[in-house]
Amino acid sequence: MLLEKTIAEVGTLYPEPMAEAQKRLDSLIKPPGSLGRLEELAVQLAGITGNPRPVVGDRVIIIMAGDHGVVAEGVSVAPQEITHQQIPAFLTGVAGIGVLGRLAGARLVVVDVGVAVPVDYPGVLNRKVRPGAGNIARGPAMTREEAVRSVEVGIEVVQGEIDRGATLIGLGDMGIGNTTPSSAIAAVLGGYAPEEVTGRGTLVNDQVLRQKINVVARALEVNRPDPADALDVLAKVGGLEIGGLAGVILGAAARRVPVVIDGFITTAAAMVAVALQPRVKEFMIASHLSGEQGHRLMLEHLGLVPMLYLNMRLGEGTGAALAMHLVEAACRVINQMASFSEAGIADLDEDKILK
Amino acid sequence: MLLEKTIAEVGTLYPEPMAEAQKRLDSLIKPPGSLGRLEELAVQLAGITGNPRPVVGDRVIIIMAGDHGVVAEGVSVAPQEITHQQIPAFLTGVAGIGVLGRLAGARLVVVDVGVAVPVDYPGVLNRKVRPGAGNIARGPAMTREEAVRSVEVGIEVVQGEIDRGATLIGLGDMGIGNTTPSSAIAAVLGGYAPEEVTGRGTLVNDQVLRQKINVVARALEVNRPDPADALDVLAKVGGLEIGGLAGVILGAAARRVPVVIDGFITTAAAMVAVALQPRVKEFMIASHLSGEQGHRLMLEHLGLVPMLYLNMRLGEGTGAALAMHLVEAACRVINQMASFSEAGIADLDEDKILK
Repeated sequence: MLLEKTIAEVGTLYPEPMAEAQKRLDSLIKPPGSLGRLEELAVQLAGITGNPRPVVGDRVIIIMAGDHGVVAEGVSVAPQEITHQQIPAFLTGVAGIGVLGRLAGARLVVVDVGVAVPVDYPGVLNRKVRPGAGNIARGPAMTREEAVRSVEVGIEVVQGEIDRGATLIGLGDMGIGNTTPSSAIAAVLGGYAPEEVTGRGTLVNDQVLRQKINVVARALEVNRPDPADALDVLAKVGGLEIGGLAGVILGAAARRVPVVIDGFITTAAAMVAVALQPRVKEFMIASHLSGEQGHRLMLEHLGLVPMLYLNMRLGEGTGAALAMHLVEAACRVINQMASFSEAGIADLDEDKILK
Repeated sequence: MLLEKTIAEVGTLYPEPMAEAQKRLDSLIKPPGSLGRLEELAVQLAGITGNPRPVVGDRVIIIMAGDHGVVAEGVSVAPQEITHQQIPAFLTGVAGIGVLGRLAGARLVVVDVGVAVPVDYPGVLNRKVRPGAGNIARGPAMTREEAVRSVEVGIEVVQGEIDRGATLIGLGDMGIGNTTPSSAIAAVLGGYAPEEVTGRGTLVNDQVLRQKINVVARALEVNRPDPADALDVLAKVGGLEIGGLAGVILGAAARRVPVVIDGFITTAAAMVAVALQPRVKEFMIASHLSGEQGHRLMLEHLGLVPMLYLNMRLGEGTGAALAMHLVEAACRVINQMASFSEAGIADLDEDKILK
């Protein structure tokens, strides 16, 4: 019910504030378009929020955590317990996203949507749908009902944060083994071969990479997910945190709040969200191109263009956190730069400008 | 004398602090190398400064301003007077770099090294070597002595800022018409054809672009700069602010302070600086890939890899300002993240890691 309602609530960008923002940008003391993606971002934010002079207020990075039975196939260099062991490091600020989230001025919201063991750290939202996804190499990750519930958790969490004032959402993930289901989702929804979208994750060696590709191929054979049914894909070869992240995207878009995608796992979640509601794409902002094999294809499939090329592959929302600075920059440009007439600066020669 | 002395003072990166920084990064709670370029930056900063736990303190963006007689050939959409008209907008914070420099927490230092008219705005450093470069389509930009002097201005200015506490320098440029001499420098020092490294600058149309390419080719024919003599290239087809920026790079490297390159013009200056002293390359940080045709080739020639892909083409130091956030992020990562043992997190499986 919540999921269907939210999908229906997602609108489209408002054209008038976008046109007004574009006009303002074109009047500023710079060659037209010379701030490139920052200008495009400002226009997109105007269309999302309806404010022709968009601003960034409270930023929140939502980190969905979940486990994966598929780690039993030996697809990761990290033991499963790291999923829950990392959580205190997020909250005390000494993990990657702890450090970069603080630099971004973002509050972290950590959600246990499917960690294998009980998580009782203070400050973690307990929204566990089930303790870990099943081993997708041998059967489904979860039931269809659990898949729906995981997405709804994301919707509820993000809309709670928006009610508390969040105006910019970043996506983060935590889940040892979660590049494997993300590859499976990318293969099904993007129509790619497993080897095109399966990478080294936590930097596994060649032997483990071959094993991972085999596991992804096996997950597709065993489960036969229906590419036309995103919930079927999520349930059969996905993961709980991936469902939660898809819900965050849907819930934010329904409330007209921009969402910054992170790397490989959150982009798999974006593919699920877009398959459920193509209009959410207009509310998403791509942050970085991950070092993970396949991320480029997934972004191309979604029609998203990353801004940061840092060869990062940590997840947790670290790329989304860095991109928040660029979103802030876009808002500062449109609000704080002067126009040619305000600054008393000579006009450009219209006859020479590329039209 | 100052130029020769500074060139001789440029050293190499310190290997021990780099090794120590790398070891610390490898111990942090993330897969090894998973923060990509941020980790490389932290190691580079350790090698530049000698501090295995590098920090960013005071940041300064040095904007060199100069004019170009070649605008008489109709190569720009902007009239020459914008060079000096923009200067108050930098200092009052309403130009692109005013806004983005403030966001970066950087102080702006604006230097008149060759503006065509007297500049008497408070806060602008008057280091005018001559009032505008000559029209390179018809003769040299300046004498060899003036070229040396422009570089020395940059050395003096940056070293004054370092004496006042600057620990990170960004490069910015202001000079209507300065993509044309930058293309000429790139063609000579990089061995490229004029059309490979000549772009639309302030977004000129096809007709003006063809004219610009012809002007660059003519500048090379008329002046015959010696590719093996960077000062000859600067004097014959360069510009005063380009010389000043080359000096900023040399002066910062000599004092072991990192320098963030901006876009097309500052990269032409970097080519001059590297031609004068190849070791300065290790002290430079590439920020963004400009939308200007040829910037990619110039960065490749220098062996620099940009981090931001924003299709910007404004100059002024706007890309350098945005990249300062990434330099800050790199320092935060190495100083604020915990190690596996500090955080009490399970070790990764060494047998599976790519070596």
